[in-house]
Amino acid sequence: MEQLQNISRRRMLATTGGLVAFAGLGGVPGIAGAQKAAQGDAAAAAKPLPAYAAWKDSDSLIVHSANTIELRRSAFGSGGITPLNRLFVRNNLNPPSEEITKDPDAWTVEVQGVGKPRSFTVAELKTLGLASVPVVLQCSGNGRAWFPSEPSGTKWTVGAAGCVIFSGVPVKALLEAVGGIEDGMAFMTSTGGEEMPAGLDPNTIMVERSVPVSALDDAILAWEVNGVPLPLAHGGPLRVIIPGYTGVNNVKYVKKVAFTKDQSPAKIQQTGYRFAPLGAKGAPEQASIWEMPVKSWITYPAEPDETVKAGKVQIRGVAMGGMTEASKIEVSVNGGKDWQEAHFVGPDLGPYAWREFVLSTTLEAGTHELASRATNAKGDVQPEERLENNRGYLNNSWRDHMVPVKVA
Amino acid sequence: MEQLQNISRRRMLATTGGLVAFAGLGGVPGIAGAQKAAQGDAAAAAKPLPAYAAWKDSDSLIVHSANTIELRRSAFGSGGITPLNRLFVRNNLNPPSEEITKDPDAWTVEVQGVGKPRSFTVAELKTLGLASVPVVLQCSGNGRAWFPSEPSGTKWTVGAAGCVIFSGVPVKALLEAVGGIEDGMAFMTSTGGEEMPAGLDPNTIMVERSVPVSALDDAILAWEVNGVPLPLAHGGPLRVIIPGYTGVNNVKYVKKVAFTKDQSPAKIQQTGYRFAPLGAKGAPEQASIWEMPVKSWITYPAEPDETVKAGKVQIRGVAMGGMTEASKIEVSVNGGKDWQEAHFVGPDLGPYAWREFVLSTTLEAGTHELASRATNAKGDVQPEERLENNRGYLNNSWRDHMVPVKVA
Repeated sequence: MEQLQNISRRRMLATTGGLVAFAGLGGVPGIAGAQKAAQGDAAAAAKPLPAYAAWKDSDSLIVHSANTIELRRSAFGSGGITPLNRLFVRNNLNPPSEEITKDPDAWTVEVQGVGKPRSFTVAELKTLGLASVPVVLQCSGNGRAWFPSEPSGTKWTVGAAGCVIFSGVPVKALLEAVGGIEDGMAFMTSTGGEEMPAGLDPNTIMVERSVPVSALDDAILAWEVNGVPLPLAHGGPLRVIIPGYTGVNNVKYVKKVAFTKDQSPAKIQQTGYRFAPLGAKGAPEQASIWEMPVKSWITYPAEPDETVKAGKVQIRGVAMGGMTEASKIEVSVNGGKDWQEAHFVGPDLGPYAWREFVLSTTLEAGTHELASRATNAKGDVQPEERLENNRGYLNNSWRDHMVPVKVA
Repeated sequence: MEQLQNISRRRMLATTGGLVAFAGLGGVPGIAGAQKAAQGDAAAAAKPLPAYAAWKDSDSLIVHSANTIELRRSAFGSGGITPLNRLFVRNNLNPPSEEITKDPDAWTVEVQGVGKPRSFTVAELKTLGLASVPVVLQCSGNGRAWFPSEPSGTKWTVGAAGCVIFSGVPVKALLEAVGGIEDGMAFMTSTGGEEMPAGLDPNTIMVERSVPVSALDDAILAWEVNGVPLPLAHGGPLRVIIPGYTGVNNVKYVKKVAFTKDQSPAKIQQTGYRFAPLGAKGAPEQASIWEMPVKSWITYPAEPDETVKAGKVQIRGVAMGGMTEASKIEVSVNGGKDWQEAHFVGPDLGPYAWREFVLSTTLEAGTHELASRATNAKGDVQPEERLENNRGYLNNSWRDHMVPVKVA
């Protein structure tokens, strides 16, 4: 208790896990932001799953809202692949009717900006080629809970992320079938199949995202995830998968794939998902939220209000490299003062997946702040501090992701 | 229709898929064995899932009995990992009460035949080490449906198999904690936690299997599968996993792991799961059913009563090497007359997993007999013919696994 209270005030304020710890110990008084977050979390835990995601494992999830559902830090498991019923959900708009997944092969997608523009049914796409790509799917705002500026948007901690295997047709195979990209086209612009409310300029609301054509080497149009037809909750019948790119770029229920000179005029592309300075609005000249950076976090022990037995322990977590594989992982049991190299376990699922890691060590009684720090194959090292930005995107700070653990 | 009828009578008799095709085309008259199998299949389809497996996807499964549940050939998916709710089930005895999985960490296992014999709770095992191993889990009798001798036992076609990721403590790490294997012990003998009926000699019924200690390099005691706590249906709270060995060797609800000089005296070890000549009974001097051989089968197109559109098609399947990875896969679209090399897709999950393969080709109208033939890294080639044996074990004949497909 005393040791726990000695943990820096800043950490406790910023860590949802820490707040839970305090709650378990009798609560921490008088800190407005912290209390708000803790209450938000408690309230969220009680919310039911929305109908389109009712098949998910509610015990493993925090339902922030019908369109924002997070995996608990303690529920990541250790197999490297996230079970579908534990995969987070985040929709920018309400999903279309469940009806669209009843006959997935009949769904059509329009392909434009190519030699021979045309539409394809999913059944037709299935004849063109097949690839299965393990990827980390992660919301751009995962880790937003730790931004002290309290950006608008869901206060995700670690659970707006999962590692899953998507199967579908390689974009390259699709391009072969349509005579390649038209000259001068620099982006692939994909449009979601959400219903548009009448009377609104679609550009203000539609989910249409552009990615540079250089990102398409391993991209697919996916109809399957983890071996089953893509559920509506994850973008079925058909979803764009841009390996290494944040969630929003993987357009769901995709109805149009256009190769374009410029980025989409939609608000979600022009000013949304931009790396804006604190206090500034999003603008086209700012970096778009595309590639994910190197990142890792501890997943066990991860329950600050639960006591771990002193002695030998296997500290676990997940590490991702972003656009290339994680190649090294270090763990600290004293808040980042000292680091030990941990080892990867389980299968190497390629550059866009994460890997489970383990540090086999002994912990003495007391409170330990567990941290992890990943390095990727390009040599990028997970930084200590987050990069501040107005909407709380791309948090990969190892300090923010620390978790205090009681050992007795 | 005419072409389909021209397919060798032997094939149609032996192939459940073929029987379904005939049924769809009006049925094939007067063949007792075939009708029996077809009826068995239809009846099985109507059986409900048993309570302990009620969470499974019934549409994807054939319930032969409460303890024998098979994955449909058309439901393998293409991600390489079998979703847990599609994984086959096969129990030698009824599973214990669901209660044993309520507090999995409290389950205990006795370790004997080691330097310091003792028992461990699962919670204690979790402190010793962690490995995650993708493995093909396959019933020894998978493919039994094609043995013309109609051996006793479930008439599995391809679906008593799946590829999943088990997580648990390496047997090596466990051995380190108990001072290693006692001198002279040649086998690891594991005992299942099923309840024994009173008044019976346990040896006649208990599930106790021995494997040579040479098989333990990558063996684990698993408490997790595909990222979730091991369900009762698959041996939770704790299961022995011997990568590369057939299902029966992966003892469920394991309550004792003993290193022994000799193989278990249990019937299931002494005379059960032996490679007995046709007409002979199982006996200790025959080979025990341990290692799995190289094998593959087509999973799409796999519905003989469904018509595939002529033209470009992606023929899919799975290929496993047994004790080492599948390194080559060939596909024939004319019943094994000609072979084309197909390519692997998706992640390489290591030596004990299978890999998804694809042949991108065009099929003209007519009926095609699709076959696949795998080669493993040791150079073993999947044989044309099954090795006859009295109980119908280890069928890896490519000819038996062919599937006729209508193209129009």
